[in-house]
Amino acid sequence: MIESLYAKSFASDNHAGAHPSIVEAVAAANAGDAPAYGDDSWTAVLAGQIRAEFGDDATSLVVLNGTGANMVALGMMLGRRFDAVICPETAHIATHEAGASERILGVKLVTVPTPEGKLTPQDVTSRLGGRGNISEVQPRVVSISEVTELGTCYTPGEIAALAEAAHANDMLLHMDGARLANAAAFLGCSLRELTTDVGVDVLSFGASKNGALVGEAVVVLRPELADAGPYLRRQTLQLASKMRFVSVQLSTLLTDELWRRNAAHANAMARRLADGVADLPGLSITWPVEANAVFAALPAEAIEELRSRYLFHVWDAPSGVVRWMTAFDTSPEDVDTFVADIRQTLKG
Amino acid sequence: MIESLYAKSFASDNHAGAHPSIVEAVAAANAGDAPAYGDDSWTAVLAGQIRAEFGDDATSLVVLNGTGANMVALGMMLGRRFDAVICPETAHIATHEAGASERILGVKLVTVPTPEGKLTPQDVTSRLGGRGNISEVQPRVVSISEVTELGTCYTPGEIAALAEAAHANDMLLHMDGARLANAAAFLGCSLRELTTDVGVDVLSFGASKNGALVGEAVVVLRPELADAGPYLRRQTLQLASKMRFVSVQLSTLLTDELWRRNAAHANAMARRLADGVADLPGLSITWPVEANAVFAALPAEAIEELRSRYLFHVWDAPSGVVRWMTAFDTSPEDVDTFVADIRQTLKG
Amino acid sequence: MIESLYAKSFASDNHAGAHPSIVEAVAAANAGDAPAYGDDSWTAVLAGQIRAEFGDDATSLVVLNGTGANMVALGMMLGRRFDAVICPETAHIATHEAGASERILGVKLVTVPTPEGKLTPQDVTSRLGGRGNISEVQPRVVSISEVTELGTCYTPGEIAALAEAAHANDMLLHMDGARLANAAAFLGCSLRELTTDVGVDVLSFGASKNGALVGEAVVVLRPELADAGPYLRRQTLQLASKMRFVSVQLSTLLTDELWRRNAAHANAMARRLADGVADLPGLSITWPVEANAVFAALPAEAIEELRSRYLFHVWDAPSGVVRWMTAFDTSPEDVDTFVADIRQTLKG
Amino acid sequence: MIESLYAKSFASDNHAGAHPSIVEAVAAANAGDAPAYGDDSWTAVLAGQIRAEFGDDATSLVVLNGTGANMVALGMMLGRRFDAVICPETAHIATHEAGASERILGVKLVTVPTPEGKLTPQDVTSRLGGRGNISEVQPRVVSISEVTELGTCYTPGEIAALAEAAHANDMLLHMDGARLANAAAFLGCSLRELTTDVGVDVLSFGASKNGALVGEAVVVLRPELADAGPYLRRQTLQLASKMRFVSVQLSTLLTDELWRRNAAHANAMARRLADGVADLPGLSITWPVEANAVFAALPAEAIEELRSRYLFHVWDAPSGVVRWMTAFDTSPEDVDTFVADIRQTLKG
Repeated sequence: MIESLYAKSFASDNHAGAHPSIVEAVAAANAGDAPAYGDDSWTAVLAGQIRAEFGDDATSLVVLNGTGANMVALGMMLGRRFDAVICPETAHIATHEAGASERILGVKLVTVPTPEGKLTPQDVTSRLGGRGNISEVQPRVVSISEVTELGTCYTPGEIAALAEAAHANDMLLHMDGARLANAAAFLGCSLRELTTDVGVDVLSFGASKNGALVGEAVVVLRPELADAGPYLRRQTLQLASKMRFVSVQLSTLLTDELWRRNAAHANAMARRLADGVADLPGLSITWPVEANAVFAALPAEAIEELRSRYLFHVWDAPSGVVRWMTAFDTSPEDVDTFVADIRQTLKG
Repeated sequence: MIESLYAKSFASDNHAGAHPSIVEAVAAANAGDAPAYGDDSWTAVLAGQIRAEFGDDATSLVVLNGTGANMVALGMMLGRRFDAVICPETAHIATHEAGASERILGVKLVTVPTPEGKLTPQDVTSRLGGRGNISEVQPRVVSISEVTELGTCYTPGEIAALAEAAHANDMLLHMDGARLANAAAFLGCSLRELTTDVGVDVLSFGASKNGALVGEAVVVLRPELADAGPYLRRQTLQLASKMRFVSVQLSTLLTDELWRRNAAHANAMARRLADGVADLPGLSITWPVEANAVFAALPAEAIEELRSRYLFHVWDAPSGVVRWMTAFDTSPEDVDTFVADIRQTLKG
Repeated sequence: MIESLYAKSFASDNHAGAHPSIVEAVAAANAGDAPAYGDDSWTAVLAGQIRAEFGDDATSLVVLNGTGANMVALGMMLGRRFDAVICPETAHIATHEAGASERILGVKLVTVPTPEGKLTPQDVTSRLGGRGNISEVQPRVVSISEVTELGTCYTPGEIAALAEAAHANDMLLHMDGARLANAAAFLGCSLRELTTDVGVDVLSFGASKNGALVGEAVVVLRPELADAGPYLRRQTLQLASKMRFVSVQLSTLLTDELWRRNAAHANAMARRLADGVADLPGLSITWPVEANAVFAALPAEAIEELRSRYLFHVWDAPSGVVRWMTAFDTSPEDVDTFVADIRQTLKG
Repeated sequence: MIESLYAKSFASDNHAGAHPSIVEAVAAANAGDAPAYGDDSWTAVLAGQIRAEFGDDATSLVVLNGTGANMVALGMMLGRRFDAVICPETAHIATHEAGASERILGVKLVTVPTPEGKLTPQDVTSRLGGRGNISEVQPRVVSISEVTELGTCYTPGEIAALAEAAHANDMLLHMDGARLANAAAFLGCSLRELTTDVGVDVLSFGASKNGALVGEAVVVLRPELADAGPYLRRQTLQLASKMRFVSVQLSTLLTDELWRRNAAHANAMARRLADGVADLPGLSITWPVEANAVFAALPAEAIEELRSRYLFHVWDAPSGVVRWMTAFDTSPEDVDTFVADIRQTLKG
C-alpha cells in the first residue's frame, strides 16, 4: 500500500480517515428503504439540529464537497449576471477550486491582498469605486473563510464588522466554513456566535475535514435566499440521491458536539507542533497558529529531507514556506515524533 | 419516521439502501491516513479492476453523482464552444438534470423523439444538416442511456451501429450507464461487450442505483480524451477529498461481479412484477420490460389509490403512465404483495 | 464582384443595402464630439421616440445585432440559474443563433412543435408539468417571434392570450421582433398594439432587416426589469461606443413611420411574388404569406436550376421547401422577372 | 444638445466622430444587394488588405466592438475549460468589460500587478507554479494591450520576448490592439512588426478609436486557430448581417495608411498637451506619454473645476490621477485652449 510508506500525514486534514462514530452511523442508516434526494428521516433530523445550532430561521442543504458547497452558496447569493464577489487573494475559491467560480458560476472574483488571509471592512468598501459603472462588475457578495487558508481566525467582532460593511452596501456575507469547527474551538464559542449572530448570510459548513467520510452542507441564514437552494444544488451537481448517508454524517458531528471535540483536538495538536519547533533556529512560524495548521519557513534542504519521510505541502517554494496540518486523529506521539525529526533535520 | 409509512418503495432504485458488502468495505477502508484526491491504494486497486473489466486502455475517474458523471464525461468530449450533443428527447441529461448541460457545460442538446427511448443511426445522421453552417451548433457527441429512461436496452449490435455512425461523422459516443449493470444482466454479456467492444468513447458508470452509498465513475475508453479528466472533475465539483471511501464502493461492486448479481436480481423482480400484472384488464405495459423498470398505463383512480400506500412516480399524468422500479434488495414477497394490491385495486 | 453575378437577391432581407435616409442620417450625425456609450443627444432623441411609440414606461437599449438583442432581452428576464424559456421549435433563438442561448445565457430552451411557427396558450401551459420539481428547469419566459420564422404573424389577440397565459403562470413574454415592422404593416396596427398593449414584457426590435446599416434595439416594457439592462448590454458585448451612429438609424426608421413604409413595401412584394406563382402546378405555398417571406415547395430540379441564377435558401431539402424573401428595396420588376423565371423553370 | 455644453472632449478617443473618408465609404458601399454575413466583395477586399498588412497567413474576422473582439479572440485560444489567461491587473479585459471574460467565456484571469501596465516574461513564468495541479487553473494565454491602458507601448522586442516566454511554455499570445495604430505610429513601425513578426497569435484590431463608426476586427495570425472563428463570432454575438458596412470601414483605414495618419495626429496632440503642462507645479505626469493618452496627478479642486468645463475621466480618485485622451480630430487649438485652462486653474 502506498499509504504504508509514510508516517502520519501532515499534508491535510483530509488525509485522515473518518471518525468511527460517523462510520457507525452510516452503517446504521442502512436500514431498508428511504425516499431519495432528501425526503428521508435522517435529513429531517439534521434539519432540526441545524435549527438548534444556527437558529430557527436556518435551513440546510446537504451537499457533496467543499467546492460544491461554495458554488451552491454563492449561486444563491449572486442574482445578477454582473454581480461579483470580493474575497482575499488567498481564498480557496480564488486559488484552489480550478476556476469553478468563473466557469460554473460565471462570476468575477475581486481579490484583495491581505497580510494574514483576513479581509477588513476597509478592504471591502475600497472595492466599491465602480458601483454604478456599467463597464465594471458590481460587488454583491463578500466571501471570507473561517478558518482562513492561512490558519488564522476571524473573531466574532471582526465578522460582525464585515457583515455590517457588506449589508450597509447592499451586499451579502458568505462564509467558507470548511474548518468553521476549528475556529469555534479556538475561539471558545458556538457555531452560531460565528455565523447567525454576527450577520453571515450563507455558510458553507465543512464536515469532511472534521471527521466525515464525504459530504458538507450549505446553511442558509437569510431565509429569503432559501427558495432557490434545492434547484441550484440539483443543477450544480451536489444532490446526493441516497442523501440519508450524507445527512447522517453531519448529524453525528452535530450530536454532543462531536464537531468541537474533533476540532479542538486537531487544534491542540497543531499548537503542540508549533510549540515544539518555535524555538528552532532556521525555522520561523509564518502566521499565527490558531487552528489546525502550522505554516513555517525553513531551508529548502530541510524541506526536501523531511518530505522524503512525511507528507506535507510546500505552500510557497520561493520563500520556503510549508504547511503542516493536523487532524482529529493526529496523536501527541505523531506530533512528537515529527517534532523530533524536524529538530534533528534542522540541526543536521 | 417518514419511511415507516410505506411498504417497499417502487419509486426508484435509489430508494434502496446500500448493499451490506459495500458498507463493510467502507468501514474497512477507514484505516488510518491515506493521501486525498485519489492518490490512495483503494483507488489504485479500482483502476486495475476497471482495466480488467473495460480493457487495458480504460481509465476511470471516481465522481460523486450521476449528473456529475455525465457533466464530466460530456465536458471531456466537447472541445469547441459550439459543439452540440444529439440525444433522445427522453434522455436524463435533457429532462431531469435541471438544465446542467446548458448551465454547467453551455451546450445545446439536440433532442430526437424516439418510440422507446433508443436512438438509431438514422436519427443521428438526419441531424447533421447544419454541419458547416455557422448559425447552427455542430453536433460532436451522441449520448445514449443504457438502460434507457424507458427501461429498454440497446443490444451490442445497436450500440456498435451508433458508434459507427458517430465516428464516421467525426462524432464521439457517450453512454449514460447509470444502469449499465442492469443492461448487461439482461443481455447476458460483459460490461465490456456493451462499451469498449462496440465503440463507446466515454461511459458514465453507475453505482448508486446498484447498491452503493454515494458515488459513480466516469470510464474513459478513448485514451486521448483522458488528460483533461482530472482537471474537469475538480472544476465540475466531482472530486471527493477522501476518495478511498468512494473508490472502495465501486471496487466492491466490481469484485466477483456483485454488480451483476445485484442487477440481475432487480431485473428479475421487475420481470416478476410485470408478469404479475400483464393480464390485468385496464392495465397495459407501455414499453418492453428489459431491466428493473416497469412502465404501465392504468386508470387515474387506481393510480391515486395505489399511491396512498406505495411510493412510485407518475411518469405521464395525461396518459396515465406510471413507473415502478425494483432494486437489488426488492424481495419476491415485496413484489407479490404489490401485485396483489394492484390486482385488487384494478378489480375494485 | 461576387454581387454582380446575381439578379436581385431573394435570400434574405439582409442582403439589401440600407435605406438612403439612414445613410444620410448617419453622415449627419458625424458632427464633432459626443459622449460615448449612449450619453449623446441622438440617443436621447431616440429614447423619446421609443416612448412615443411604445408608451411612457418604455425604455430602450440600442444594441448591435439581432442575436445580441435576444440575449440581452432574455438575460434581463431570466433571474434564476434554472429558469427556462418556452419557444417554438422553429424559433430563431433555438435554430440559428449557434447555441448562444445555451452558451451565453446558460439557459435551456423548451421547444414546442407548431404547425405554423406560432405558440398557443395551451402549448405554454402544457409545458409547466415540472413546476416545483427540482430536477427540471423552471419555465420563466415565453418567447415568440413576430413575424415568425415561417413568415406568419400573431394577431394582437393571439399575443394577448399568450401574455395572459404567461403572466398567470408567473412567466414573462419576450418578443423577437426582428421583423415586427412587417407584422404591424400586415396587420395594419401600431407597434404598440402588438407589444405594450397586449402584454409583451421585453421586445427585441429589429432594424437591420428593415433598412438599417447595423443595429437593433431592446425595448423594455416592464419597467422593473430595466435597471439591469445597461450592465447586461455591456457584458453581453452589445454596447456600441459611438452609439449615436446606431441610435440615429433607429431614430430615422421611427421618423414619419419610415419603418412602416419599408415593411409594407417588402410585404407587398412578397404578396406579388406569391400571387404570381400560386397557380403553378408542381409548386405549393407552404405557409400563409403574411409578411415578406414566401415559402414554397417545388421539385428539386427546379430549385437547382433557379439557384444557379438567384440567391435564396433551401429551407428544408427533403421536402423541397424554399424561402424567398423580399426587402424594402425589392422592385416590382425584380419580382416579375423572378416570377417569370420560376414559371419558365417549372414549365420546362 | 448635451454635446454643445462642452468644448472638445478629452474623455476618450471614442467621443470623436468618424473620419469623413469612412462615412463616405459606407455610403458608397450602399450599392444594391450583397450577400450577408461576410460573403460580400467589400469583405473580400478587406481580407486581401489584412494579408498584405499582416502576412499571407493572416485571416480576419470583422466584429462589432472591442470587448466582442477580445472575447472572440480569447475564445479561439482557450481550448480547455480550465485554461486561464495571464494579463496585467490594468488590462481592459480585467477591469472594464463588465466581467465578460468570466461570464461569456467562463475563464479566470490571472492578473499581475505592473508598474506601467506592461507584462514582462518574468511576470508570465512566475505564474506557472500551478501547472499540473488539478486544483488550479492552467494558464494558456498571455494577453497584452498595445497601447496599454496606461498609455504606454511595448516595443517589438518586448513583445517578442513575451511571445517567446509564452510559446516556450505552451501558451499563446493575445494582443488587445484597440489602439495598435497609435503604438505603431509612436514606434514608427508597421502593424506587422508589432504582431506577426514578433509572435502574436491572435490580435484584436481596433478601428472605432481610430476614426471608424462601429466595428473592429480579430486578426488570426496562427492559422490552425482560424477554423473555429466564424462559429465563435456568430455565437459570441459579433456577426454583422450587412457586414459590408463594417468591412468597408476597416478597409478604408487600411487604405494609404489612413490608420497611421489618424493615430499619429492623435499621438502628437497628446504630446502637445503633455508638453504644455509638464512644467506646472502641482501637476505631475504619471506614466510616459507614448500614445494618445496623458495621465496626470493634480489637486482635487483643480480636477473638479476643470471637469465643470471639460469631459475627461478621473482615473484614480484617491491619488488624484486623471486621464486626458486625444483623437484623430483633436486640433492644436483644442489642446492649446485646454492647456491654457489647466494652467489657469492650477495657478488659481
